[in-house]
Amino acid sequence: MEAKEKLLLYKEKVDQELNIFFDEKEKEYSQVSEFSRNFVGSLREFTLRGGKRFRAGLMFYSYKMFGGTNDDEFVKLSTFIELIQSFLLIHDDIFDNADLRRGGNTIHNIYEEEAMGDGSYDRSSFGHVMGILNGNIANQFAFEIIAGAKFQPEMLLRVTELVSIKICDVLFGQVQDYLLPLQKDFTEEEVLKIDIYKTATYTYEIPLLVGAILAGAEQEEKDLLREFAISAGIAFQIRDDILGMFGDLEKLGKPIASDIKEGKKTLLILDVIRNGTYEEQEVINSKLGKSNITNEEIDEVRNVIRDSGALNRSENLCEQYTTKAKEIFSKIERKDNEGWTFINDVVEYMIKRNI
Amino acid sequence: MEAKEKLLLYKEKVDQELNIFFDEKEKEYSQVSEFSRNFVGSLREFTLRGGKRFRAGLMFYSYKMFGGTNDDEFVKLSTFIELIQSFLLIHDDIFDNADLRRGGNTIHNIYEEEAMGDGSYDRSSFGHVMGILNGNIANQFAFEIIAGAKFQPEMLLRVTELVSIKICDVLFGQVQDYLLPLQKDFTEEEVLKIDIYKTATYTYEIPLLVGAILAGAEQEEKDLLREFAISAGIAFQIRDDILGMFGDLEKLGKPIASDIKEGKKTLLILDVIRNGTYEEQEVINSKLGKSNITNEEIDEVRNVIRDSGALNRSENLCEQYTTKAKEIFSKIERKDNEGWTFINDVVEYMIKRNI
Repeated sequence: MEAKEKLLLYKEKVDQELNIFFDEKEKEYSQVSEFSRNFVGSLREFTLRGGKRFRAGLMFYSYKMFGGTNDDEFVKLSTFIELIQSFLLIHDDIFDNADLRRGGNTIHNIYEEEAMGDGSYDRSSFGHVMGILNGNIANQFAFEIIAGAKFQPEMLLRVTELVSIKICDVLFGQVQDYLLPLQKDFTEEEVLKIDIYKTATYTYEIPLLVGAILAGAEQEEKDLLREFAISAGIAFQIRDDILGMFGDLEKLGKPIASDIKEGKKTLLILDVIRNGTYEEQEVINSKLGKSNITNEEIDEVRNVIRDSGALNRSENLCEQYTTKAKEIFSKIERKDNEGWTFINDVVEYMIKRNI
Repeated sequence: MEAKEKLLLYKEKVDQELNIFFDEKEKEYSQVSEFSRNFVGSLREFTLRGGKRFRAGLMFYSYKMFGGTNDDEFVKLSTFIELIQSFLLIHDDIFDNADLRRGGNTIHNIYEEEAMGDGSYDRSSFGHVMGILNGNIANQFAFEIIAGAKFQPEMLLRVTELVSIKICDVLFGQVQDYLLPLQKDFTEEEVLKIDIYKTATYTYEIPLLVGAILAGAEQEEKDLLREFAISAGIAFQIRDDILGMFGDLEKLGKPIASDIKEGKKTLLILDVIRNGTYEEQEVINSKLGKSNITNEEIDEVRNVIRDSGALNRSENLCEQYTTKAKEIFSKIERKDNEGWTFINDVVEYMIKRNI
């Protein structure tokens, strides 16, 4: 079975556990108020709305790869990363003032529209406050799931520590990611740092290491996973940047070329600035971060990225990091063939994805 | 020694450990950028700026009360509650659009003023984004401290679980607290629910139970602590409401009567609406939540609260909850006199405080 199908099967299991978890939480917080129950419901809908459960699946197959056998408990535990994902996305959408995510309204947007009261206050503030709180709740839920899991306490503590430290890294990545569009100049080093802190950490490092910790992997193996996570994470982000520029609304679930409007400074953009003609650079500098950009201007930016060769070079770079990731990964002993093969293949799958 | 002096001595120890923690974090995140190092510095300054370290002290003496002996490690661990406190205050100040806290600028205000870049974007958005992220980082730090502490892993997991669940309760309390001013009517039950969820949980329940868990207290004792926490927490909040209405800027570290401007609906306000004359009710209804309220109008509100008898009745209610709390507390066996006495006395001290 291919990585893609495996992921689809795992998604079913994770979604089932997420539903059980949210059932309990809705019941629990209905005691506070009907609004609170619905508030949990919004998080549930957002979390289950879309997504491939890629991180949860990666976590599971890392656990299998190192010989883990407590599958049912592991599925339950792995739901935490999807709640962390919701937490980060909900807040990120506030930072970016984004309206759409996974083909539906962002959380702050839902509450902006559903604003309570007599309308004597700012609806947008209401949406933001509720979005911040909704994301915070998702974050607490994640730690509750880890602490309540049925694994060795010492191992679970190491997982808690890893997650808190690494999510902190993601947050600092978000800080830098928000600052970069405000700077005039930027370097490859700065972009790569954001890719590593903001993406590699929770897309690859956390899932792989949580699986490894709970299966009792050796230190050397964990070190290799960390190294692998960085290259695989950068490849993932480059693909994400390309999709953010060329992907379409229907597949992506977010507005066309929102990265351009938000002025995101990626390796793709840096490539044009470094290697493009003066005219090409000018197009990028004048259109990037323009909130009222027209569809024609978006096409102009896309053409420049294509014609300057930046798109090709970024695709090549993505391949290079994938090759590097696989090289590192090949050093890890193949104790369990199914887990090993999944992780080896999924890196490739993730850089060929359309969503 | 009285509770107040004991608290002051404990504050010194906690602040010392917080400084050690922040030294390490500033060093660590200086690797991301100078901005990130300063970002940790802002959280450090905010956390250490003021505060009595009441919650950390309560946690310590609960630990002592149930026979805990690993004092040095416990001081380190207890710093986590101050980071949770920072997390909650930083976000709460965003929700309330507050400018001042603990006698200094709120975090979002600091970053609004220090906004980066060429000024082509909204300074207020910049402040808010940085405030949200700064608070989130404080929250992750708290979990890192718990997971890294040197106590029995099983006990630390129970602490992690308690904190994640209870902070979630606080967040739902914040949701309700934000909704209440938007409602036309409100009931005593609704206000008490907020006081319990938003205040009693992390001011009393978390500190007392963390101490009890790590000292290995019996289930029955923990049940009594939970019951005690609710009454003590309500008393604490009523005192807080009175200070929010009558305290002065210098002592409180936040603007005079900010609760009036924010339209906070407290038991104090409910009392006037229930027991005041028609004219008194009108003053409350017309001034509460008025953002451009004058100092004369604030005095008018204060006079109404005093003259209607609401202030006296609230002070009595505060005493009643304190008496109830002490009654519950007296059922807990006095294994360690120092710890027991501190907690018994500090409840009284907290309702007589001026800040």
